[in-house]
Amino acid sequence: MTEEIKNMLAQTPTPPYYAVIFSSIMNKELEGYHEMANAMVELAEQQAGFLGMESAREEVGITVSYWRSLSDIHSWQQNSKHLAAQKLGRSVWYKDFTVRISKVEKCYGFSS
Amino acid sequence: MTEEIKNMLAQTPTPPYYAVIFSSIMNKELEGYHEMANAMVELAEQQAGFLGMESAREEVGITVSYWRSLSDIHSWQQNSKHLAAQKLGRSVWYKDFTVRISKVEKCYGFSS
Repeated sequence: MTEEIKNMLAQTPTPPYYAVIFSSIMNKELEGYHEMANAMVELAEQQAGFLGMESAREEVGITVSYWRSLSDIHSWQQNSKHLAAQKLGRSVWYKDFTVRISKVEKCYGFSS
Repeated sequence: MTEEIKNMLAQTPTPPYYAVIFSSIMNKELEGYHEMANAMVELAEQQAGFLGMESAREEVGITVSYWRSLSDIHSWQQNSKHLAAQKLGRSVWYKDFTVRISKVEKCYGFSS
């Protein structure tokens, strides 16, 4: 995870846009995970239509990435390096995960 | 946060349904926060249309709650105890937050 993403809220454009909500529970075997997670964040940031990302983990991990369109999400999901990471995720690192693809209709915030 | 919610992925019905993505950065002043957060989780679980919740915090906190409809989300946002909690959140606990209301169109998962 890059430091910038770990420490900040995503700055996204006016809706509509899309959010991919990735919720997960890890296995105990984490060898290679953090390096891969960092690499995938850096790769995601380079994809067309990437708008931002937020991530946190306690018992459950939640990563929400924001995208311009469903087609941009599909392209990222089919990226060859991302596909290899997904395969390792299923076979080694994740005990359970859920991916939800959602259309952001409204966004508001507060900054002190 | 109730233990059940902290340790599990939400079990939601087939889409469509709605997700409220609440991302936040806390202030240093946290007096009363955890008690209020627990109380709000318990209250949310009792609301009509509540489908589940996932939550994690590191530098950024992310809580995603799932709801049957926009109208259920609106009712929860206008709940008087929740309004009081939101007011304290803005004035005391949160440095920054973003609320995104999104329609979940697709959901898939993996369980080992």
